[in-house]
Amino acid sequence: MSFDTSRKLWGWGRAEAAVSEPLLAMASALLGQRFGAALAEPCPVPTLETLALPPPRLEPPAALAEWLTAAPYHRAAHTYGKAFRDVVRALGGDYSPAPDLVAYPRHEAHVERLLAWAAAEGVAVVPYGGGSSVVGGVELRAEQRARYAGVVTLDLSELSSVLEVDHASQSARVQAGVYGPALQAQLAPHGYCLRHYPQSFEFSTVGGWIATRAGGHYATGPTHIDDFVQALRVVTPRGVLATRRLPGNGAGPQEERLWLGSEGALGVITEAWLRVQRSPRYRASCSVGFQRFEDGAEACRQLAQSALLPANARLIQREEALFMGAGDGERHLLLLGFESAVTPQGHQLAAALELCRAAGGAPGRPRERVAEQGAGGDDAEQWKASFLRAPYLRDELVRRGLVLETFETCTTWQNFPALDAALRAALTRAFEQTTGQGLVTCRFTHLYPDGPAPYYTVIAPSRFGQQLAHWDALKHAASQAIVEHGATITHHHAVGRDHRPYYEQQSAPLALELLRGAKRALDPQGIMNPGVLLAPEPLSPGRASPR
Amino acid sequence: MSFDTSRKLWGWGRAEAAVSEPLLAMASALLGQRFGAALAEPCPVPTLETLALPPPRLEPPAALAEWLTAAPYHRAAHTYGKAFRDVVRALGGDYSPAPDLVAYPRHEAHVERLLAWAAAEGVAVVPYGGGSSVVGGVELRAEQRARYAGVVTLDLSELSSVLEVDHASQSARVQAGVYGPALQAQLAPHGYCLRHYPQSFEFSTVGGWIATRAGGHYATGPTHIDDFVQALRVVTPRGVLATRRLPGNGAGPQEERLWLGSEGALGVITEAWLRVQRSPRYRASCSVGFQRFEDGAEACRQLAQSALLPANARLIQREEALFMGAGDGERHLLLLGFESAVTPQGHQLAAALELCRAAGGAPGRPRERVAEQGAGGDDAEQWKASFLRAPYLRDELVRRGLVLETFETCTTWQNFPALDAALRAALTRAFEQTTGQGLVTCRFTHLYPDGPAPYYTVIAPSRFGQQLAHWDALKHAASQAIVEHGATITHHHAVGRDHRPYYEQQSAPLALELLRGAKRALDPQGIMNPGVLLAPEPLSPGRASPR
Repeated sequence: MSFDTSRKLWGWGRAEAAVSEPLLAMASALLGQRFGAALAEPCPVPTLETLALPPPRLEPPAALAEWLTAAPYHRAAHTYGKAFRDVVRALGGDYSPAPDLVAYPRHEAHVERLLAWAAAEGVAVVPYGGGSSVVGGVELRAEQRARYAGVVTLDLSELSSVLEVDHASQSARVQAGVYGPALQAQLAPHGYCLRHYPQSFEFSTVGGWIATRAGGHYATGPTHIDDFVQALRVVTPRGVLATRRLPGNGAGPQEERLWLGSEGALGVITEAWLRVQRSPRYRASCSVGFQRFEDGAEACRQLAQSALLPANARLIQREEALFMGAGDGERHLLLLGFESAVTPQGHQLAAALELCRAAGGAPGRPRERVAEQGAGGDDAEQWKASFLRAPYLRDELVRRGLVLETFETCTTWQNFPALDAALRAALTRAFEQTTGQGLVTCRFTHLYPDGPAPYYTVIAPSRFGQQLAHWDALKHAASQAIVEHGATITHHHAVGRDHRPYYEQQSAPLALELLRGAKRALDPQGIMNPGVLLAPEPLSPGRASPR
Repeated sequence: MSFDTSRKLWGWGRAEAAVSEPLLAMASALLGQRFGAALAEPCPVPTLETLALPPPRLEPPAALAEWLTAAPYHRAAHTYGKAFRDVVRALGGDYSPAPDLVAYPRHEAHVERLLAWAAAEGVAVVPYGGGSSVVGGVELRAEQRARYAGVVTLDLSELSSVLEVDHASQSARVQAGVYGPALQAQLAPHGYCLRHYPQSFEFSTVGGWIATRAGGHYATGPTHIDDFVQALRVVTPRGVLATRRLPGNGAGPQEERLWLGSEGALGVITEAWLRVQRSPRYRASCSVGFQRFEDGAEACRQLAQSALLPANARLIQREEALFMGAGDGERHLLLLGFESAVTPQGHQLAAALELCRAAGGAPGRPRERVAEQGAGGDDAEQWKASFLRAPYLRDELVRRGLVLETFETCTTWQNFPALDAALRAALTRAFEQTTGQGLVTCRFTHLYPDGPAPYYTVIAPSRFGQQLAHWDALKHAASQAIVEHGATITHHHAVGRDHRPYYEQQSAPLALELLRGAKRALDPQGIMNPGVLLAPEPLSPGRASPR
C-alpha cells in the first residue's frame, strides 16, 4: 500500500514531523502578548480508537475488493481535507463525513471499473488527490451524502510513477497519483524537475494540482500547474478521454483547460504529459524594505509590468514578516529573486532594484550565485525553508484555541486598494461580533501585469467549542467582501464546497450553465464529486438516487 | 457605415493596395523558372455586376431593418473568407454561399435582438469578425444552409471603440468589432499598444482574434491573443454572459478559455478587457545563417528551452527566404530579436547567439537600438514590412493559374523530424497525382519549450478550372499526414469547416461530446455558426428547421 500511514489523522503532514518546541513557544508568546492573554493548553488529539466513525453504508463488491477497503484507518484518513474547519472537527472527534469505502486502484482500468460500478449503483465518487484541499473539496456534505447509495473516496497513490521522459521536448509522462517529493526524486536522475512548488508540495499530487489549478511559489512566469500541462488522460463515467501532446494547439478551445480546475466534477485525471525543466544555474536575489505597504505594492506593479519576470517577488507585510522570523517588524519586505539556466541575472536584478528604489524601496545587499548544473535540490530546500512549517504551526495553534487560517484572491491593480480596505473593514466588524479582536496580515504571492494575488492570514483568539462558529463568521465576512468588490473567491485554493456560494455570486449564470452542460455530457448520473463547483442537480428518474 | 467598402470583393485587402508590379514580376519570373513554364495571363476579376448572387431567402424584419441589409454589395462582400478556395471560387464568379442578410448592429442590445429573432425563426447566424478566415469559418456549406430558414452574417464593424482605459492595471475595454489598425490608433494616445500582430492584423478584428485564438507574430512569450484577454462579454442565444476582470482567477476552469477558440459556435463576443502594453524601448537583433535546417531547428529548441524569451525567433528555410527577398538562398535564416521596455537587451542576445553558434549557426552583425518611449508605431512598421504583402501576392499569383496556399501545425521537438518527412512525402505523392510538381517551404513561426510551430507554404503550377481540385487534393494529403503523425490540424488558423474532418480525427470523441454539451446549454436551437468545430446535430422537433 503506497498510502503514507504515518500521516496525521487530524491535520497536516506527519505526526513525527510536528513543529519544534522553540518555534511554537515563540509564536505562542508573540500571539499571547498581542491578544493580551496566554494561549490555552493544547487539546488532546483523536486516535483511531477515540474518533467517532459512522458504520459504512457500502461493502466492497467482490470484483473490486482487492483494492477497495472499508478499513477504519483508511476511512478516517480520507474523511477531511486540511482546512481549519477540518482540523477543528477532527480534533473534536467528529468523523461523520467519512466515506464508506476508499479505493486504491492499481491501474487506470480499475478506475474505469470503479466509475462504471458507481454509476450503476448510484454511488458518489470523490477524487482525493493528496487530500490537501482547504475548501471542502474531498468531503461530501450530509445533504449531498443522503442523495447517494454511498460515497467512495478515490485515492490514486498506487499510480505514482514517471512513465516516460522525452528529452528533446523536455516533457515527462507522469501518473496522477504521484506526490511532489516522489515526482522530484523520479525526475532528478533524468536531470529535470517540474519547478512547480505549491505550499502543499509534500502532501499533494500531480492529479490534484491539475484538478485544482495549483499555484506554484514563483511570483511571475511559469508557476501555475496550468503552464506545465501538455496533455492529459482522464477517466470519466462515459469512458477515457486523452488529449494529444501539442505544444500550442489552436484547434477549438484548448482541451486541457476545461480539466484544469474541474475539481473532479467531470472525471478523474489519471495521467499527464508535463513540461519539465532543467534547474537554474544562475541566481540573483535581494530583499527590499518599504516603510509603506502601498509603496511596495507600487514597486510590485512596476515589476509585473516590466516583463523582467522575477522568479521571486513576494511582498510581505511587516507583521507577517516578523511572525515568520524575517525582517525587523518595522518595514514591509519584498523578497526579490531572478533565476536562469543560461545567463547571469545580475543585470535583471539591477533593473528591478532601480524600479524598487524609484518607488521608495531600500534594497539590502544583492547576492549572486552560480550553481553546478543539477536537478532542483536547491529549489526544494528553498521551498522547504519558507513553506514547510506553516501548516504544522497552524495545527498546533488551533489545538491551543486560536482561529488561524488563510484566504486568497486576486484583483486588478486599480481595484486592490478598495478591495483591501473593504476586506479589512468587514473583518474588523466580524471580529467585534465574534472574537473581539484579531490580526490580519497580507502578502502578495503572485504578480500579474494587471494585478496582484493578495494572500491574507487571519489570527484571532477564540475558545474551544467556538472556533468553528468564529471562523465561519470571519470567513463569510471576508468572502462576501471579496465577491462584492469585484475580486475572486480564489486565486489558487480552488472552489470545492466551501467557496461555492461565492463562486455562484461571481460567475455569470450562463457560465455555470455552460459548465453544467459539459458535466451532463460526461457524467450523466452526476456521480463525480457532487457539490463541488456546481450545486447537485435535483434528482430525476434517470439520475443517481439513494437505494 | 463603418464597413470598409474599398475592400476587394474577391480576395485580400483593398483593391487600390494591389501588389507592386516589380515584386509581382520578380515572383512570377522566379516561379516560371522553377516550374519550367511562364505563368498564365491573369484572369479577370469579378465585379458586383458580373458575379452570380442567389436571391435572398430572407427579408429584414421591420424591427431590425435599420441595421440589417440584403444589399448585393454587402452580401457579396460577406460571402467568403480569404482562403485560396475562396479566392478561386470568387474569381470564378460563384457567390452561391452568400448570406441572405448582413447585420451591422450598433449596440450590444441589437445583437441580443438579432439572436432572439434568429432562434425563433430558425435562421443561422455567422459571426464574421474581419472575414479573414482561411478555414471556411464564415461560410455555411450548401447542406448546412438547407437546414435553416436563412443565413445572416453578423458584422460588428459598427462596434469598434476603445471604451475605457485602466492605466494602473494596463488594461483597456474594447469593442469586439475594432480592426487592428483602429485599435492601435485608439490606444496610442494613451501610450499603449496591444502588441498582438497576426498576419491578418489590418483586416481582422479583436472579436475574431479571440474567437479563433489568433497567433501574434512574436515567437515566444505573450503573443497569442489568449495571453491578452482579461475578461469577456458575450451574447449567446440564451442571453449575455460577462466574466470578471481578474488577473489570475483560480475558481473553476478558466472561463475565458472556453470562448477562446469557440469560433462563433457558442455565441458572439461583443467586448473584451485586454491587457495592453507599453512599447519596448530597447531592442537587440541579429540574423543567423545555418547550412542545415536541422541545425537551425536545434538552435530554436535550445532557445525555446532557455527561458531567454526572444520576441523574434523565426527560422526560415532558404528557398522561402529567397522568395521573400531575404538571404542568399544558400543558407537557412534565423531572425532573432529581443525587446524590453526597461533594460538593454545586448546580454540576452549574446546568450542566444552563443546557443546558436554551438548549434552550428553563423551570426551576422548584432544590432542594438534604443527608441524614444512611444506607442508602438515602430512595431506596426516592422509588422507591415514582413507580412503585409504576402496575401496580396498570393491573390495575384492565383489569378495567374497557380496553386499557392499555406498551412500550419505544431508538434513536439521529438516528433518534428518524422512529421516533416511524412508531410513532404505525402505532398510529393499528391503533386505527382495533381500538378506534376510543386514547391514546399517551411518556417517556424512560434517556439515553445516542448516544440515548434512549423508553417508550410505550398506553390504548384495548375490550370484555370483545376486549381480547386488540385489544392483540395494537396491539402487533404497534408492534413491527413498531420493528424496521422500526432500533430494538430491547426496552430493558429482555427478549425472552421475546412479543418473539421481532421479536428474530429485528432480529438477524443468525449472531448467533442463535452463541447457539444456546452453548445447545447447556450445555443439550444443550434443557430450559432453551424458546422464549425462540431457537425450540425440531426434535426429534431425542438430544434431549428427550415420553414
